[in-house]
Amino acid sequence: MRLITGGLVWQGIERGFVAGLDILVKGSRIAAVQAGLRGSPEVNGAEVIDASGHIVIPGLVNAHTHVAMTLLRSYADDLPLFTWLTEKIWPVEAKLTAEDVYWGTMLGIVEMVRAGVTTFADMYFHMEEVARAVRESGVRACLAEGMFDGASWERQFEAARSLAADWHEAEDGRIRVMLGPHSPYGTYEGLSKVAKSAKELGVGIHIHLSETAREVEESRAKHGLSPVQVAEREGVFEVPVLAAHCVHVDEADMEILRRHGAAVAHNPTSNMKLGSGRAPVQAMLSRGITVALATDGASSNNNLDLLEEARLAAYLAKMEGDPSALPAAVCLDMATRKGAAALGFDDVGALEPGFQADIVLVEASGPQWTPLHDPCANLIYSASSSDVSTVMVAGEIIMERRILKTIDERRVLTEAAKRGLDLVRR
Amino acid sequence: MRLITGGLVWQGIERGFVAGLDILVKGSRIAAVQAGLRGSPEVNGAEVIDASGHIVIPGLVNAHTHVAMTLLRSYADDLPLFTWLTEKIWPVEAKLTAEDVYWGTMLGIVEMVRAGVTTFADMYFHMEEVARAVRESGVRACLAEGMFDGASWERQFEAARSLAADWHEAEDGRIRVMLGPHSPYGTYEGLSKVAKSAKELGVGIHIHLSETAREVEESRAKHGLSPVQVAEREGVFEVPVLAAHCVHVDEADMEILRRHGAAVAHNPTSNMKLGSGRAPVQAMLSRGITVALATDGASSNNNLDLLEEARLAAYLAKMEGDPSALPAAVCLDMATRKGAAALGFDDVGALEPGFQADIVLVEASGPQWTPLHDPCANLIYSASSSDVSTVMVAGEIIMERRILKTIDERRVLTEAAKRGLDLVRR
Repeated sequence: MRLITGGLVWQGIERGFVAGLDILVKGSRIAAVQAGLRGSPEVNGAEVIDASGHIVIPGLVNAHTHVAMTLLRSYADDLPLFTWLTEKIWPVEAKLTAEDVYWGTMLGIVEMVRAGVTTFADMYFHMEEVARAVRESGVRACLAEGMFDGASWERQFEAARSLAADWHEAEDGRIRVMLGPHSPYGTYEGLSKVAKSAKELGVGIHIHLSETAREVEESRAKHGLSPVQVAEREGVFEVPVLAAHCVHVDEADMEILRRHGAAVAHNPTSNMKLGSGRAPVQAMLSRGITVALATDGASSNNNLDLLEEARLAAYLAKMEGDPSALPAAVCLDMATRKGAAALGFDDVGALEPGFQADIVLVEASGPQWTPLHDPCANLIYSASSSDVSTVMVAGEIIMERRILKTIDERRVLTEAAKRGLDLVRR
Repeated sequence: MRLITGGLVWQGIERGFVAGLDILVKGSRIAAVQAGLRGSPEVNGAEVIDASGHIVIPGLVNAHTHVAMTLLRSYADDLPLFTWLTEKIWPVEAKLTAEDVYWGTMLGIVEMVRAGVTTFADMYFHMEEVARAVRESGVRACLAEGMFDGASWERQFEAARSLAADWHEAEDGRIRVMLGPHSPYGTYEGLSKVAKSAKELGVGIHIHLSETAREVEESRAKHGLSPVQVAEREGVFEVPVLAAHCVHVDEADMEILRRHGAAVAHNPTSNMKLGSGRAPVQAMLSRGITVALATDGASSNNNLDLLEEARLAAYLAKMEGDPSALPAAVCLDMATRKGAAALGFDDVGALEPGFQADIVLVEASGPQWTPLHDPCANLIYSASSSDVSTVMVAGEIIMERRILKTIDERRVLTEAAKRGLDLVRR
């Protein structure tokens, strides 16, 4: 039993940050959030976590990434998209081993926990290694083995289904699994098979949709349909969908997403850095589509800092001429509750009784937090993710005052540094 | 005499970061940058600064801000521009005292030094208080008293000229002064007077130019000229000009800027957050215009983190479809050497013999720095300004391993927090 006391506690868009609330954690869940718990008999014996000088938020959710690509962080930048993929990323990815994926994932988890991210949605290869890293580190994740048409199809499809069988709802529900067809263009042949299989397995689908204008043009030229329409025709939306990007979606596409209750992972940094464009986030939100926030892989970002994505999402929405677009509180909601919902974690992302105790304390005392006119605006527009101090997932403390408790950080950094440099020289 | 040894040393766009170079600092200047200095007789007795595990860069330059507006950080966000100004910012600014400006400036300096910013260009009120804060803290600045047409004109014009007389090239050249007519629309009546006066005083002009589309439309409607053309007609460009924003400049405007050797301060965050738009940075750079980077005031940002601006400048340039636009090294150059040049500090912004010893050590060992494929890309795209460890200005250590040496940080944060909250309640 733990009692978090003295902080400013996030209570959602309407109520904002509230002072004087104590949070009681029992086991993996939040048992109570109310004033004056401290000192009451029911919390006798609880370990007290002093959150004074801090804000308290639900753990952040990174809704789309390829986490092991941390090994390729800053390996190839400032290149045209096609050169970047064909000359740099793909040749190196072909050499990735399962062990590389494990260490790259551990590196990414270290980075994310330090930045207050407690949950992530991953799509990559050797996903059983990612599952192992998630199990060991104690974070929460929704995992999908990536699949492409072509020579490796059978192996990937099998790996994707095995992952679902072995890991879906494992570790007391900390791990969920989806199937990960890369995209309607990359997995065109396999798409309906994947959709059918997801339905049978009772899992969702994590897929890239309409990331670039070129992808949409080619889809229309080839199929007479947008990528979203192709996905619908192939049955993808008959299960819960986590759609990454949706930069170039039109009214008809958005209506499909809305009708099927699909969630969108918005990747502002990656979309800007790769020159893909600007997703119509406000239009999607106003239709009631769940829009979450994500970093994409570290090779197109180049970090896994979700707070930075929340900030950038706001700027990107405002830059067209409306400074009132996507206010800070909405961004924090996207980074937490909407993110969790997008990944299928229905009891994650809020500081409310019954929810999973995924809780982050952010130190709110440095110059970027001064004065404290508005904690939410300071968090989204001014703070640094390095202000994150303590991180709890499912009631377990993963980081305490910036010291990682479940991961040997020095070993991870050493091993990942070595492997990253070795990988590009193999 | 100090010797910085063991770091990766920034040597400009062409050479990038170079290992094995030692930097010898004598007095306020860099005496030598070469391999193998350590151990040579000429450095006998030098204090050794161990930069292993760090990158070494010139101090960052924040080329346009209203630094005391830190007191209004996160006081008013997500509002339409006109509401924000007339209902929130201006009423509060009317109540600002000289003492508020001093403490707000000290808060901003604390924040900037922690983020590796050693030089800033400020335009605000009560600028003698800003000068005092700069003198005491040991940083470098280019200061301009803001001026508007109207009731306060005479007083402001007088204050602006006094500032130039009292502080230009003061503190061994650490402080420079410019005159600060707000903009061609805000200081229309006074513009030619300011230009003439700047010429007489031998100082430059710091001015807002073409920040919003509306400003340009109104200028064309009223004068048949763009704001840049109005400024030219009034003689502004007869002295060195630091022009903030230049978001809505056309070919003719850019040609004027180029012909007169004017420098532009690009404020990506502020331009996005206020919905002003996207400055044509590449077009200006390709014409040979000096483009520096800036945060603008903390009330439209909401921090003074110049590394974040460098990152955002890159993304903003790339987002239209060209990922190779504004590479990391160009952004670092804008944040250092170009910034210094824009402010008239010709011997600042590079790690070369004869340059001022404005030197920043950035710890390059955390997860966001792993692996170290490319230090420049890691700095611009992945790192946090909180990785800044040690800061030197004119050979004096201002921050050593994250401890401020010339400022009582606790007192500044306490005083600024109190004043910020009091200010909006007066």
